[in-house]
Amino acid sequence: MSNRAEPSIHDLNLDRGPANFRPLSPIDYLRWSADVFADRVAIIDGARRFSYGEMANRCRRLASALNRRGAGRGDTVSIIAANRTAMLEAHFGIPMSGAVINALNFRLDAASIAFILEHAETKILLVDALFADTVREALQRTSVRPLLVDIDSEDGGAAGLGGITYEELLEEGDADHPWRLPEDEWDAISLCYTSGTTGNPKGVVYHHRGAHLNALGNAFAFGLDSRSVYLWTLPMFHCNGWTYTWGVTAAGATHVCLPQMRPAEVFRLIEKEQVTHMCGAPIVLNMLIHAPQEEKRPLPHRVEVATGGAAPPGAVLEAMETMGFHVTHLYGLSETYGPSTICVPQEDWSALSPGERAAKIARQGVRYPTLGESRVADPETGIDVPRDGESMGELLLRGHTVMKGYLKNPKATGEALRDGWFHTGDLAVCHEDGYVEVKDRSKDIIISGGENISSLEVEEILYRHPDIMEAAVVAKADAQWGETPCAFVTLRPGVDGISAEAVIEWCRANMARYKVPRHVIFGPLPKTSTGKVQKFTLRERASGSGD
Amino acid sequence: MSNRAEPSIHDLNLDRGPANFRPLSPIDYLRWSADVFADRVAIIDGARRFSYGEMANRCRRLASALNRRGAGRGDTVSIIAANRTAMLEAHFGIPMSGAVINALNFRLDAASIAFILEHAETKILLVDALFADTVREALQRTSVRPLLVDIDSEDGGAAGLGGITYEELLEEGDADHPWRLPEDEWDAISLCYTSGTTGNPKGVVYHHRGAHLNALGNAFAFGLDSRSVYLWTLPMFHCNGWTYTWGVTAAGATHVCLPQMRPAEVFRLIEKEQVTHMCGAPIVLNMLIHAPQEEKRPLPHRVEVATGGAAPPGAVLEAMETMGFHVTHLYGLSETYGPSTICVPQEDWSALSPGERAAKIARQGVRYPTLGESRVADPETGIDVPRDGESMGELLLRGHTVMKGYLKNPKATGEALRDGWFHTGDLAVCHEDGYVEVKDRSKDIIISGGENISSLEVEEILYRHPDIMEAAVVAKADAQWGETPCAFVTLRPGVDGISAEAVIEWCRANMARYKVPRHVIFGPLPKTSTGKVQKFTLRERASGSGD
Repeated sequence: MSNRAEPSIHDLNLDRGPANFRPLSPIDYLRWSADVFADRVAIIDGARRFSYGEMANRCRRLASALNRRGAGRGDTVSIIAANRTAMLEAHFGIPMSGAVINALNFRLDAASIAFILEHAETKILLVDALFADTVREALQRTSVRPLLVDIDSEDGGAAGLGGITYEELLEEGDADHPWRLPEDEWDAISLCYTSGTTGNPKGVVYHHRGAHLNALGNAFAFGLDSRSVYLWTLPMFHCNGWTYTWGVTAAGATHVCLPQMRPAEVFRLIEKEQVTHMCGAPIVLNMLIHAPQEEKRPLPHRVEVATGGAAPPGAVLEAMETMGFHVTHLYGLSETYGPSTICVPQEDWSALSPGERAAKIARQGVRYPTLGESRVADPETGIDVPRDGESMGELLLRGHTVMKGYLKNPKATGEALRDGWFHTGDLAVCHEDGYVEVKDRSKDIIISGGENISSLEVEEILYRHPDIMEAAVVAKADAQWGETPCAFVTLRPGVDGISAEAVIEWCRANMARYKVPRHVIFGPLPKTSTGKVQKFTLRERASGSGD
Repeated sequence: MSNRAEPSIHDLNLDRGPANFRPLSPIDYLRWSADVFADRVAIIDGARRFSYGEMANRCRRLASALNRRGAGRGDTVSIIAANRTAMLEAHFGIPMSGAVINALNFRLDAASIAFILEHAETKILLVDALFADTVREALQRTSVRPLLVDIDSEDGGAAGLGGITYEELLEEGDADHPWRLPEDEWDAISLCYTSGTTGNPKGVVYHHRGAHLNALGNAFAFGLDSRSVYLWTLPMFHCNGWTYTWGVTAAGATHVCLPQMRPAEVFRLIEKEQVTHMCGAPIVLNMLIHAPQEEKRPLPHRVEVATGGAAPPGAVLEAMETMGFHVTHLYGLSETYGPSTICVPQEDWSALSPGERAAKIARQGVRYPTLGESRVADPETGIDVPRDGESMGELLLRGHTVMKGYLKNPKATGEALRDGWFHTGDLAVCHEDGYVEVKDRSKDIIISGGENISSLEVEEILYRHPDIMEAAVVAKADAQWGETPCAFVTLRPGVDGISAEAVIEWCRANMARYKVPRHVIFGPLPKTSTGKVQKFTLRERASGSGD
């Protein structure tokens, strides 16, 4: 290309080749841990234990068998399963076959599952017996006919949906299957459907490069190493377990499966398996805090907990710390491989009171070191809001760990990634120290008499009431003010009941008058399949409630 | 491109854009730490301290000023400096200007410096006053005329070579200079010249992507976090401080500069600055071990030391552990961004005797998680040697952190990267546990009577002699055996002298007869500028010595 006698430093002679370039992929993490920690326990699943050598062997068999059954590059292999061995192995075996893993949310109904199987063009579907009925019903609603594989359950039973069980499938495969990397690190590794609070779920596509980087960022930010023991309190279907499926493996740490979230089981496993790390939405922390006293056990050592998916109320943070957990607050979305910001603790926070420290930690914090960039922009002008902790803007993210896009949805992809930034749809402020705090989903903000009211801020106060376990606040149409806040609250077990007036009085004492809910409705909160409060349902209820 | 109504998962609609793709570069590490830890101490350099906010500010000024002075993408900016602030800042400021950093080995002579300046086409040269004389002489030997910048020394003096000092240069720059990433992550970030034991030094080119990944691998493998304090016992010119210049910054940890390696200063800084981590070749560890008693201080806490560049003799490892250091053994070459293997400790090693454990740690170990692949191949057949700890082959590496190639040297590049692997030139065995142990440089192996003798193995025994401080063994031509081992030894300070016969007797008692040196020569060992023993010089001396 060049006639220069002396080629420059960017010369083509120094191009990529097999010796100095390889695609980034989390597949290499399993290969590494299998080579270095072959005999170390990789998976604890009830009474079963697998070493990293065995796990690698099984994942290679899975990849090989999937290829033999016709799944290859760009095909979708779906799985609906609790947090068990097969679910974890699928995160390596499926990508190693060249296919894309689509881990289904097991809380979805048959209609949603049917929509996803069809939209994802699922070629092979692995089914946990627990969810066989839903799958059976879903298959009646779609023309897609994936090969069905029954995941053997702990007690030896399987769903009996397909002609083959998971363990039989592994038997078909070759343990010497090559460690296949993607042709291109931009190749899809995973397809995660959003919970879809409105309309059809969207299929978020991750690539190998992003999965590699977010997993390493997780392992590094959460301080995982080969001595760590990670308890799967977070469903693995949730953004591939926030990419910890790959991150825990990268560290050569031990995965402890937890098929069902039961506080007694969590406390038992922490003690028995010497758990050091776990993740979960604030609702999971709340379950641990409010567990009956006979189910709780004192922690044998400090346990690191990363929470996200919703802002943890200060009261929850305080209660967790009192129990001996150390909580790190992460924030992210399906579109960002799970965690993309972290509330990095600063040295001087340790001198604060528990309440002040909880307020610091409740903020979403700063971008992951492996993300790239973040900012809070005024939606009108596009300019960064001042660092005053008050001016509200939309939280924008961009970098290594933003999705490829939505599958077969260029319009939504273009909208989400417009102007070179991923638009989170979350309204946030930026504090003086550069830490971001999400105040509300943009559609959840309440505008009363021209004033913005953050529903999260009102909820935070409600959570501090000693009798309230959960709270959600939404807008209710109001002839005079446009909107007013309407509170839905769930009381703690054992509380006989308190009056709406008492709740309103509590709010009056703790917030500006215009933010105080005009209505209080008691009862359990409706949740999405990923555990988020369904505010759209509450808004309907609010509008139906008398004035 | 496609007529399908329903685009597939690898569809072009899910292509890279500014929202979901950015080049990997260590520049982002400084940006992150400056955002998250603006007020935390980034650099301690004698009496001067800079926060991450200040460091970022200065690096942006440097990048801006370099651009204004005409250095841009693909240009070389060289620096010859001790481990001080300017040297560390150059690792960010130069790449942020788009230019390539060429950190010169300050132990080189004027002729070598002249060769490098010419070969690298240096446009701007930053000079530490300590090395002004060498640079002055080098410039007389070359027609290259870089802009000269005098680095201000601690006492306010500067070399007076150029028309401008480093601090004046920073003043010319703009602290709001954009955080410029490379156009392509494959762009060169650094140019490191090999020490060149034979012939002209070769210019090893690193890219931003590899620097990013190796730095993160280092930080993760060495357990760095924002509370770490890293002492610069390793020269930063050495593979960019094995990429810890970037890795320590990625962790938001504190850099402690050490312009000259003096044991008393090391012990003082460990105590004063609460140092937690440091690196150095075994010779550095040896200096600490053999420091006069009055210079030593008890360690206030366990200090992590990573050693590499040569295999650490077991005696050195044992002595370091006794002093309270915890040693990790790394292995790598200039061509692999410094460290590319690590001797990951296994749980069961803690039950071993100190000697057995040292023997385990003295092995080069396993590939870095961020490298990719490694193997030991029979040079004849190209097949992996068995894991028997005996069969010797060449250690081959490939993956993310292998150099782009040698600058303006396609022949050497092609040779080093042939057959899809980087050829280290090191002869190694693979143990049953998969850990690699380098037995010798391929050119250092001694072949006596048809038997291979590892010079390192003989040296290991010599190091265990209580009176010997340093040892090197080379081949000496022999009419009967082809070659025989010839030992060069340096005695410990205070030892009056021992006879060659006593040394030979020691060897006889500890190794197979054919491996025992026939000749022993006393005196200091000649070293390359990077502290490696110059075996070619010793070979010349050996051939000149009487028989």
